[in-house]
Amino acid sequence: MSALSPLPASLPAFLQPYLPAQAHAPDRPFVTLTYAQSLDSRIAAQPGTRTHISHAETKTMTHYLRAQHDAILVGINTVLADDPALNCRYGDTGAHQIRPIIVDPGFRFAPVALGSRLLANLRAGTGLKPIVVVSSETPLGGALHDQVALYVDIMRVPPAGGTLPWEDILGGLKRRSINSVMVEGGACIINTLLNTSLVDSLIVTVGPVYLGAAGVQVSPASPVRLARVTWWTGVQDSVLCATIDRNAPQ
Amino acid sequence: MSALSPLPASLPAFLQPYLPAQAHAPDRPFVTLTYAQSLDSRIAAQPGTRTHISHAETKTMTHYLRAQHDAILVGINTVLADDPALNCRYGDTGAHQIRPIIVDPGFRFAPVALGSRLLANLRAGTGLKPIVVVSSETPLGGALHDQVALYVDIMRVPPAGGTLPWEDILGGLKRRSINSVMVEGGACIINTLLNTSLVDSLIVTVGPVYLGAAGVQVSPASPVRLARVTWWTGVQDSVLCATIDRNAPQ
Repeated sequence: MSALSPLPASLPAFLQPYLPAQAHAPDRPFVTLTYAQSLDSRIAAQPGTRTHISHAETKTMTHYLRAQHDAILVGINTVLADDPALNCRYGDTGAHQIRPIIVDPGFRFAPVALGSRLLANLRAGTGLKPIVVVSSETPLGGALHDQVALYVDIMRVPPAGGTLPWEDILGGLKRRSINSVMVEGGACIINTLLNTSLVDSLIVTVGPVYLGAAGVQVSPASPVRLARVTWWTGVQDSVLCATIDRNAPQ
Repeated sequence: MSALSPLPASLPAFLQPYLPAQAHAPDRPFVTLTYAQSLDSRIAAQPGTRTHISHAETKTMTHYLRAQHDAILVGINTVLADDPALNCRYGDTGAHQIRPIIVDPGFRFAPVALGSRLLANLRAGTGLKPIVVVSSETPLGGALHDQVALYVDIMRVPPAGGTLPWEDILGGLKRRSINSVMVEGGACIINTLLNTSLVDSLIVTVGPVYLGAAGVQVSPASPVRLARVTWWTGVQDSVLCATIDRNAPQ
């Protein structure tokens, strides 16, 4: 685990208006949607792989942002592809711990959980217990599930129309005292969330590369207009901060 | 035709290193690839439609760039969708005229040519005669073709593997004294050209909107690494200037 490069001095003021300090809906956490994409809106070069798109300075930004949130949320595909640590390395060691959340309707995390970096961090005291959001229709039980359940908090959500409704996921997290959540991917999570009215801040890093047509793409089913748009430019990347314009015809 | 907004003062210096002044291959024009895309890499909300993505200031930039080139090149789909003027409105009226080029293997321009803005501009003295790049296998003849041929310069290119090779198109343009060409779209033109070694400068405007999965997307078949990357940020848009990194494993 390499050290983070320094945070560019201009970033905190740029990011501040988009952080979870403001008032928001009382029945769910403040939701920041953030990811890094190529110019052609790919977040990975191929499905199931991890691709480094952003520059060191925007990687530091990601950890700075994590330090401002209670939790990080990703989909199970991201966990299976990346085995991510989902921790916060910004600031003093151990100064801020952030709750990992995995949206995992079929509990596919179970077979890989005991060997994962998430649980290694938990055992080492450098990570919090993950919340795994599982469909209430997925059968639980057996020795493996019992063992994994010692290390994760399983949050059951009833499916509707084949998916777990975002309102119910976020409502359940709020009841677990999660007041702010940083949603980091993958593509399915991002695409579906963009077409809800549940995103409070959007922070997108655009890296100067084309990953090509075989990559994993971000593009919501329906168009989305943005408001309060600002850009920050680093050495290699450009970072967009915005909110979703809920008054625009989508 | 509305007036252009003023050119932001910082743009000329930002763009200068990417303009066609530098040395380049002797057997083809200097090629600048430029277009505006949404965050999700769409250049239009639906096929066959025109979508305004960029802010007024970057629209002015497009006309400023046109004033630095001998020609503008687009594909026939863009002509059929937009009926574009493909002229240059930057600077004194008539100070710079730019040659329109349409890549149109099947000569689909013929039926719409006489009513097009391109030929209206030509007749009015506010536009140059377009060059239409037609496959040498497309039969020409008949009253319509004869009439259209009075107003356009038909450049025949032999197809190879079902398409017109970019090397041959650009070689033919160079022999017509086109020393610099600004390629503006559409998606098929951009995607194929990105996977050649023929692009000298890349200038991409990213507008703060998602056009959604039904949009017309830019993403080349194979990944493309960039070099000499710089970003400019306007009120709403971010503009990337770069070159294609021909030394990188693509």
